[in-house]
Amino acid sequence: MTSPDKIWTAGLVVIGDEILSGRTHDKNIAQVATWLQVQGIRLAEVRVVPDVESRIIAAVNDLRAAYDYLFTTGGIGPTHDDITVDAVAAALGVSVVIHPDARALLERYYETRGGLNEGRLRMARVPEGSELIPNRMSGAPGIRRGNIFLMAGVPHITAGMLDSLTGQLEGGAPLLSETIGCWVAESEVADLLRQTEAAFANCQIGSYPFFREGRVGANFVVRSTSADDLAACSARLVEGLEALGYPATSGGI
Amino acid sequence: MTSPDKIWTAGLVVIGDEILSGRTHDKNIAQVATWLQVQGIRLAEVRVVPDVESRIIAAVNDLRAAYDYLFTTGGIGPTHDDITVDAVAAALGVSVVIHPDARALLERYYETRGGLNEGRLRMARVPEGSELIPNRMSGAPGIRRGNIFLMAGVPHITAGMLDSLTGQLEGGAPLLSETIGCWVAESEVADLLRQTEAAFANCQIGSYPFFREGRVGANFVVRSTSADDLAACSARLVEGLEALGYPATSGGI
Repeated sequence: MTSPDKIWTAGLVVIGDEILSGRTHDKNIAQVATWLQVQGIRLAEVRVVPDVESRIIAAVNDLRAAYDYLFTTGGIGPTHDDITVDAVAAALGVSVVIHPDARALLERYYETRGGLNEGRLRMARVPEGSELIPNRMSGAPGIRRGNIFLMAGVPHITAGMLDSLTGQLEGGAPLLSETIGCWVAESEVADLLRQTEAAFANCQIGSYPFFREGRVGANFVVRSTSADDLAACSARLVEGLEALGYPATSGGI
Repeated sequence: MTSPDKIWTAGLVVIGDEILSGRTHDKNIAQVATWLQVQGIRLAEVRVVPDVESRIIAAVNDLRAAYDYLFTTGGIGPTHDDITVDAVAAALGVSVVIHPDARALLERYYETRGGLNEGRLRMARVPEGSELIPNRMSGAPGIRRGNIFLMAGVPHITAGMLDSLTGQLEGGAPLLSETIGCWVAESEVADLLRQTEAAFANCQIGSYPFFREGRVGANFVVRSTSADDLAACSARLVEGLEALGYPATSGGI
């Protein structure tokens, strides 16, 4: 039995030279983060590493030791720079094997697309002891081994894999949030934010300033796993802002 | 004297609960990566960590030991969740002090904006021994201490700070790249990519597949610090693709 108060955590390793060169703008961090929140799991850390086996191994081993779940994105395709499976198997100290169901999937998928060649068969390789994560978008599946999940780098393929995992992972109470927008420089109300957060042990308040329509404003995001605490803390913050002469907009601006 | 062949590297710590919750889509990784390339410095690793001092300290210490330069984004504003300065000072084992020039800047900036209060004065705090990085966009400067650079979280403010650092950092030969686009499934040409890369020790080839206009294609990015090797490797790849019946588009598709 897991305590109902346990906070479940995940780490994410984003794998790929293309992110570190600035060529590709990562979309998987936000997508995985948002999906995890709904599962009641907090994304606790992300590492972006290049297509270098030793660097992937180090990140995988650090994060799988530190958090309940580990996700990776990238490097599970058919080409020579796709080395995630080998790196994760090495990190776990297991062999790489051809998964028979993955091979069958790929044979069917490529039957009308030129046949299964050596490159394509690479996508059936998994760390020994893995299951497959369905991929509705293209032939190659994702890979699950225990609490480790290897996903695609292409965001819409990862989206389909996350979708098929929805509700499958044990999580805790989802982190709830409420956003309060205000046309105020955050530096005007820094004291109020600190005092309000301090009064509610179970809440955190984030402050996200913006410049818009020629004016400064901020969205204050209150987060808590308790709906009651969230409501009370948010109400206190709105009162405090209005007492200082700054009308607050529930839901943010 | 530094060897002309030295590869200069940087680590980036992205600080902020808002990235890990999925609320904010990070734009600083790509922006810092692209800027570093132009300086002849490779972004070697990124870590995204929450607004928790111990976690920032650990990431800062790991990455500053591993790479030539360390950048951070986020957490240098006026509110209670802005703890980057304290964390970096703790990581370095130095005190936090008020920088007199930063204080003067903020006094001028807030003269017509309600005056310098306690929250705003927080933005003049720096790890002892730091210099300021100009911020053309708003009052608070970035912070440089040796090879460590603390930048804003708001992307357009960070852009201005990077701009003012352009040409200030020692780097090596910039990593050059050439993109070759082709309407082919990357899995069709995986062998060719591997063989071509293997023939040029000083080049790497990345493969970035896409689905567009109902067809599969890929951009192959050849990278090298040598313009000659880059040209030769790219030419070999184009020939190889065309020999297999796939016309290649220089510059990518």
